[in-house]
Amino acid sequence: MHTRTAGELRAENIGEEVTLTGWVWRRRDHGGLIFCDLRDRTGMTQCTFDPEHAQGSAFHTAETMRPEWPILVHGTVIARDAETVNPKLPTGEIEVLVDHIEVLGRSKTPPFQIEDGIETAEDTRLRYRYLDLRRPEMAEKLKLRSDFTFAIRSALHNRAFTEVETPALFKSTPEGARDFIVPSRLQPGSFYALPQSPQLLKQLLMVGGVERYYQVAKCFRDEDLRADRQPEFTQVDIEMSFVDQDDVMGALEDVLADAFAQVGVEMPTPLRRINYWDAMDTYGSDKPDTRFGMHLVDLTDVFKGSKFKVFSGAANTEGHVVKAINAKGAGTWPRAQIDKLAKVAESFGAKGLAWIAFREDGSMNSPIVKFFSDEEMAELKSRCDVEPGDLVMFAAGPRLASDEILGGMRSHMADALGIECEGHDFLWVVDFPLFHWDDDAKRYEAEHQPFTLPHVDQLDLLETNPLAMGSCTYDFVMDGFEAGGGGMRIHDAELQLKMLEFMGFTEERAKEQFGFLMEALTFGAPPMGGFALGLDRVCMLLAGSDSIRDVMAFPKTSSGSDLMSGAPSAVSLGQLKEVSLRLM
Amino acid sequence: MHTRTAGELRAENIGEEVTLTGWVWRRRDHGGLIFCDLRDRTGMTQCTFDPEHAQGSAFHTAETMRPEWPILVHGTVIARDAETVNPKLPTGEIEVLVDHIEVLGRSKTPPFQIEDGIETAEDTRLRYRYLDLRRPEMAEKLKLRSDFTFAIRSALHNRAFTEVETPALFKSTPEGARDFIVPSRLQPGSFYALPQSPQLLKQLLMVGGVERYYQVAKCFRDEDLRADRQPEFTQVDIEMSFVDQDDVMGALEDVLADAFAQVGVEMPTPLRRINYWDAMDTYGSDKPDTRFGMHLVDLTDVFKGSKFKVFSGAANTEGHVVKAINAKGAGTWPRAQIDKLAKVAESFGAKGLAWIAFREDGSMNSPIVKFFSDEEMAELKSRCDVEPGDLVMFAAGPRLASDEILGGMRSHMADALGIECEGHDFLWVVDFPLFHWDDDAKRYEAEHQPFTLPHVDQLDLLETNPLAMGSCTYDFVMDGFEAGGGGMRIHDAELQLKMLEFMGFTEERAKEQFGFLMEALTFGAPPMGGFALGLDRVCMLLAGSDSIRDVMAFPKTSSGSDLMSGAPSAVSLGQLKEVSLRLM
Repeated sequence: MHTRTAGELRAENIGEEVTLTGWVWRRRDHGGLIFCDLRDRTGMTQCTFDPEHAQGSAFHTAETMRPEWPILVHGTVIARDAETVNPKLPTGEIEVLVDHIEVLGRSKTPPFQIEDGIETAEDTRLRYRYLDLRRPEMAEKLKLRSDFTFAIRSALHNRAFTEVETPALFKSTPEGARDFIVPSRLQPGSFYALPQSPQLLKQLLMVGGVERYYQVAKCFRDEDLRADRQPEFTQVDIEMSFVDQDDVMGALEDVLADAFAQVGVEMPTPLRRINYWDAMDTYGSDKPDTRFGMHLVDLTDVFKGSKFKVFSGAANTEGHVVKAINAKGAGTWPRAQIDKLAKVAESFGAKGLAWIAFREDGSMNSPIVKFFSDEEMAELKSRCDVEPGDLVMFAAGPRLASDEILGGMRSHMADALGIECEGHDFLWVVDFPLFHWDDDAKRYEAEHQPFTLPHVDQLDLLETNPLAMGSCTYDFVMDGFEAGGGGMRIHDAELQLKMLEFMGFTEERAKEQFGFLMEALTFGAPPMGGFALGLDRVCMLLAGSDSIRDVMAFPKTSSGSDLMSGAPSAVSLGQLKEVSLRLM
Repeated sequence: MHTRTAGELRAENIGEEVTLTGWVWRRRDHGGLIFCDLRDRTGMTQCTFDPEHAQGSAFHTAETMRPEWPILVHGTVIARDAETVNPKLPTGEIEVLVDHIEVLGRSKTPPFQIEDGIETAEDTRLRYRYLDLRRPEMAEKLKLRSDFTFAIRSALHNRAFTEVETPALFKSTPEGARDFIVPSRLQPGSFYALPQSPQLLKQLLMVGGVERYYQVAKCFRDEDLRADRQPEFTQVDIEMSFVDQDDVMGALEDVLADAFAQVGVEMPTPLRRINYWDAMDTYGSDKPDTRFGMHLVDLTDVFKGSKFKVFSGAANTEGHVVKAINAKGAGTWPRAQIDKLAKVAESFGAKGLAWIAFREDGSMNSPIVKFFSDEEMAELKSRCDVEPGDLVMFAAGPRLASDEILGGMRSHMADALGIECEGHDFLWVVDFPLFHWDDDAKRYEAEHQPFTLPHVDQLDLLETNPLAMGSCTYDFVMDGFEAGGGGMRIHDAELQLKMLEFMGFTEERAKEQFGFLMEALTFGAPPMGGFALGLDRVCMLLAGSDSIRDVMAFPKTSSGSDLMSGAPSAVSLGQLKEVSLRLM
């Protein structure tokens, strides 16, 4: 319908006859003329209606038009007067003098302004998502997502990966999160499950000889939705066979660097690799943002003889530590503000928070410092590089728990202090422990997933110290977020069964849930490993957003509702009866 | 792990040291040597173990290896003896003299041969799909699908289409097929539905200003599965706004031609467009294969005065016809074989089948020819271009029903006669009727879908002759299959409501199901239209397969079962209770 887009006209187009389509954005009447900013997805062009120039009823039609009406205009590109040139706008040197207009539709007054940076409640934006998406900043985010998705597909396709679609209606194998279940009408009483990931299917594809697989896969988890989770999300799913871990990680770095480069982001390779325990030790996180310091400092040896029993107790207990971080600048905070940090620390599992504020005047403010010896204080200051204005915070207790508390505080303080991070931060965290202890279920659970290959030289630790067992795993960390995760897989049926049994599966239950996988592993499964990239999260980070909802066209609320369509909703009794179900 | 693939070695690689990985395909022991055909996804290389050459225990290891074991070999590329060169094999000039072998896994004896062209029952192949996919012909089909999918994505991306992911958990709007429903745990008693297509969502994206959208979208229909339907299937979903029908069809031709060209298939543009009624008239099908003739011939006027009452009755009834097709070659069939055609015709809605076999000796065999006058026979022979050996079949009755019977017979006879079709056949069938009459529901139903734009100059026919109303629609027909379908959409809320009401929706039900769409249309919806390409079917045709199951990695049976994983399966009472359901 149009010959040009609203974003592309420049001074060199002056004199050209054009047809444009788009929405009336703003309309101004001035000096007997009507000015209309016409918006399409590429940008905006000022269209001018002059009663002397407009043909037939065009000027009259222009008088009736309202914001958000879709229109078509035909006219001539002319130069703007010098004083009305808008240097901020790509099309700011020109306008279109309209001779003809066609109204393509009409619009009620939208419930919010179609503008960037609006303060409208998110629920309203979700209710009228189709209007929200008209806002240029939202349109740009959708486009960025499309571009990055295409970039990573291209990077994979060009490296001889085969895209394979795996089924969405699959078997319920509840572990980790809850499955969404789908009743079968043809087999009453039976259910499909929507996949939490294509993990099992991609391993079967490796058994099937695909060798290099990828898929941009919709995944489903019926979890209680935390602030930034969605019941359905998308991952770029990758798997390779006849490979070792370095093969996979090298291929992934190559693919990711290519994809990021295509959207203008440089990811230098080879990526840094940080061992899981080192990451916990230094950053208190298995997904550290390394663009700023505030490292965790180990002071265990310093406080072995301390009069402060909380510290000396920890320092003298096997597996416990005393550690600290130094939040530079927060030492000037008023006492009341510092006191609130205890609550924050509690949210990361602490029972309280020990701290020392080093005031600018050289004094100290702290509930605990009175217990410290001069030597302890001197060593603390030295190791933590203390200067006036610093706030040192402590954690004392079991190593991992202490690291997690300080890791949480490190992130919190970086936000609170407004530490600016330039560019993006990419790294691998590798060699996660194979298991963690689930205190609710009273059993060992897989840290990554039950199909992860252990460090095979540590298999004897299974009997003696399973928590010390490492795994062939690698998480891709971007800007302090877990942006992807991967690992090598068990490709031996016996080892797989042994691992499942160790995690509390009876042989019967293991076979019921994963029998088809274990059977497949008896038919010559090759060594294999892979990866899944959290597409929503990566796009969120690329877009500079703080919620994955911003990079999804139609996200759901934290109760799983689509406010626009009203889903989920009641279904008819007939629909339920067809699948042999009734409501409880 | 490997330095080369098993498909790439040629004479010029002779002397090279290589590491290969793959599966043991065939193993032969001959003259004190062991020969192993090593297969990976790129091809096959013969690996030779010579006890004089193999290092350490390599020869001994080779003695243990069995078919389908994954192995790694290291060795030197050498020339085959002149008499063992295999010109049929790309790697047939060379072999690899192995010095080292590593067994990467072991395999039980597979339940069927990993070979092309096996006769194994499909259920067995589906049960062990991971073994079935190792067969080169299946691997090639998966690769073709991946390549074509990437090709069409590229074609769209390069034309400034934006890929947008729409939700899989959406609102149940049952119409057309049944929805799969998904109970919500967070909102007990409420259900999501898996989308039958992203139709409503893509229209909302147009209201949202996306302008050019695409998605390779998983779609779900809970139908009784006919031979070649699947509960989930994939369509390339496309929508454009600020366009007229020629804009959309032109853009689609351009995209499709580009995508087909990337997989080596020429689709000449502009595509032929056949009006729906012309297609029915000439081919008795709205998805004709035009690579062969056997056109429907209208003989209504010929039999107006016929003594054969079945024909003259139809010929003198308004809206009824007498038509015929000429199946050349079938006139030599024995009577018993011809008689069986009546059953076939019945499957297309006929009550019986009138026919004339013109024997090679000039005689005629027919139950009805005795009623024909000489003039009728002469005119019949002339219009149907009758020669000895032809079989002419008739249909007499309502126009559309008669066309459909003969269209069905035309396809059947083309198969039965083994008519060879060269290359692919692409065309548009356009201007479908807006409605058909549903005799079960006793109401008009949308021929395409309820959101299709009618021919706006025919809106007055709604009152007088709705079945004569045309619609702005276009089906993409490939090799006699409906490979895609599209249309312009209603972008006016009032017209949309009017159409839904005409199709028997109360205003209340229309608003309950489609209120969010109609509300969106009140906020300045632009003119829009789009398309959906049936990816499974197109890939099936490109692969030369006769079932879409061949181009899906993990298809389901006609009862909706995944024979490999056992889905669908029972779920625990706990899982049901969490979603407040019980079995009936």
